[in-house]
Amino acid sequence: MPGLSPEILRLYLVTDQALTRGRPLADVVAAAVHGGVTCVQLREKHSDTRDFMAQAVMLKALLAPHGVPLVINDRIDIAMACVAEGVHLGQSDMRVQDARRVLPPGVFIGWSVETGEDVAQSAGLPVDYLGVSPVFATPTKTDTKTPWGLEGLRQIRAASALPLVAIGGIHAGNAQDVVRAGADGLAVVSALCSADRPEVAARDLKRLILEAR
Amino acid sequence: MPGLSPEILRLYLVTDQALTRGRPLADVVAAAVHGGVTCVQLREKHSDTRDFMAQAVMLKALLAPHGVPLVINDRIDIAMACVAEGVHLGQSDMRVQDARRVLPPGVFIGWSVETGEDVAQSAGLPVDYLGVSPVFATPTKTDTKTPWGLEGLRQIRAASALPLVAIGGIHAGNAQDVVRAGADGLAVVSALCSADRPEVAARDLKRLILEAR
Repeated sequence: MPGLSPEILRLYLVTDQALTRGRPLADVVAAAVHGGVTCVQLREKHSDTRDFMAQAVMLKALLAPHGVPLVINDRIDIAMACVAEGVHLGQSDMRVQDARRVLPPGVFIGWSVETGEDVAQSAGLPVDYLGVSPVFATPTKTDTKTPWGLEGLRQIRAASALPLVAIGGIHAGNAQDVVRAGADGLAVVSALCSADRPEVAARDLKRLILEAR
Repeated sequence: MPGLSPEILRLYLVTDQALTRGRPLADVVAAAVHGGVTCVQLREKHSDTRDFMAQAVMLKALLAPHGVPLVINDRIDIAMACVAEGVHLGQSDMRVQDARRVLPPGVFIGWSVETGEDVAQSAGLPVDYLGVSPVFATPTKTDTKTPWGLEGLRQIRAASALPLVAIGGIHAGNAQDVVRAGADGLAVVSALCSADRPEVAARDLKRLILEAR
């Protein structure tokens, strides 16, 4: 694969149905896309396959007209069935070598790195970007390891040629620091899903990201 | 596809790690295979993908030398990654049309029918056998519908040309009635997973099934 364009990773929305404050996920995602989100990851840790698939098909239809790629968390079967552009795999998901063997060649793979060992290993793996997870402490995910911090992000930047997407505790107040520490893109959950106005919040974040580069 | 041989469905073990009474699943499955099990379905509703995949790879290695097919419940990504022979889909799993589109052509698809409407629909679907679920009431699955009973099974037999696998509350005491009512194969969970001697229990069930045909 010729390498994933970092452009599509700049402002990366990760969904969490529980954090939309009762608003339909489709409305929040549509607003965020109008505000400038460049990529959307569907994460559904508690849905059965039928419901997960329905959400994926809905988001694919919503995103395709905007040219915004859809990434499916964990479930490469869902990704293939809804013809998503990418998958994101964590340390308790399928190994990236297995996923790469099964996925069509055009589907990109993101992989969460939680330790220095993961980063060292990533150079030999068929992954298209790294998720630096978490960059800051966050209440959104409870199963993650020690935050990398900006210094950890800088070290990963120095060690890896892959595009880096930082996730965890990112908001308008620290977004530019994270970009300057080496992130190609910022992934956010609550900063968009829970925002009073997701479109405005996305536009603000996007501007901050592009300014900091 | 030329039609799945009903021979491989005769005695169909569905795994449940919680019902092995503390014994390693591999030991229970190996014993049951020595006793004559013809097919094994891995069902893991509460595992993360990494653990599910590890179980699938383990069972595939265990079953392949015996020529016993491995079927994966729900997760067609796991099925593809471990090169399983089949998948089994229920009403809350991926729709069979979507699964068929994604799966390699040689992987067979079983589908659970819970209502008369499901049975009527099955004739037009790309499925290779039907799971008649549940044939009797059972404590193993709590999310299923009204049991079909032997009369319901007879009606499905009359209505469908597909191989039928009955599941739910089957044991040595009713196995022959279920075969005579039209089942090509019997699927069991606790009758093997919880048996004092799974090999002996499998041998007994297999004999009863073959005698009743």
